[in-house]
Amino acid sequence: MREDLHTVLSVRLFTDRKCFGPGVAELLRRVDEHRSLRAAAQSMEMAYSKAWAIVHNAEEGLGVRLLASKTGGKHGGGAELTAEARQILEAYERVCERLRACAAKALAEEFAFYRRPGE
Amino acid sequence: MREDLHTVLSVRLFTDRKCFGPGVAELLRRVDEHRSLRAAAQSMEMAYSKAWAIVHNAEEGLGVRLLASKTGGKHGGGAELTAEARQILEAYERVCERLRACAAKALAEEFAFYRRPGE
Repeated sequence: MREDLHTVLSVRLFTDRKCFGPGVAELLRRVDEHRSLRAAAQSMEMAYSKAWAIVHNAEEGLGVRLLASKTGGKHGGGAELTAEARQILEAYERVCERLRACAAKALAEEFAFYRRPGE
Repeated sequence: MREDLHTVLSVRLFTDRKCFGPGVAELLRRVDEHRSLRAAAQSMEMAYSKAWAIVHNAEEGLGVRLLASKTGGKHGGGAELTAEARQILEAYERVCERLRACAAKALAEEFAFYRRPGE
């Protein structure tokens, strides 16, 4: 197989709607880091209203609260991940990691015929 | 696990650039059906110039000719898949199928804890 051939995967979770994917995952990781949805959104150059909508849609789709207020208003003063959010984020990351391993194996086997021109 | 939880995957192939994914795959399937890049593009409500650019980028990235002229100009008169295009498309579809199976298994195992609220 041509050496530089590789896959890039995007893994999205759906219930009755799209509810979890790379964007929500990154947002949650940054909330965990910054302890604030507003600061997390800013660090991704994302409008706070968009970040809030993404989290709200994920919470509705999953039927689970993802953020808890730390101090002050729900997301205004500070936010942290709920235990469920942490569990879902970690499970999502394990699914992605398993799929990347699976993709590397499938690619090597199914594209064994594929050579760089001239190889 | 909550019954309606499922994954939707997007699988892209890269060499030195993005060169193959769901869009190119669909375009090639339709070229095979319509025997014309122009008709394939139209059937996807895609501009011919965009379809041509997608195929051209994939050919450059893969280092493989994907379309051969059937009659008339290269893509004007009619086009068909080269043997290499067919081989790559089929290998891509097998990779996607294996990944879907892998995703279902990984999801069931990693999200075993996840229940519908009230379940």
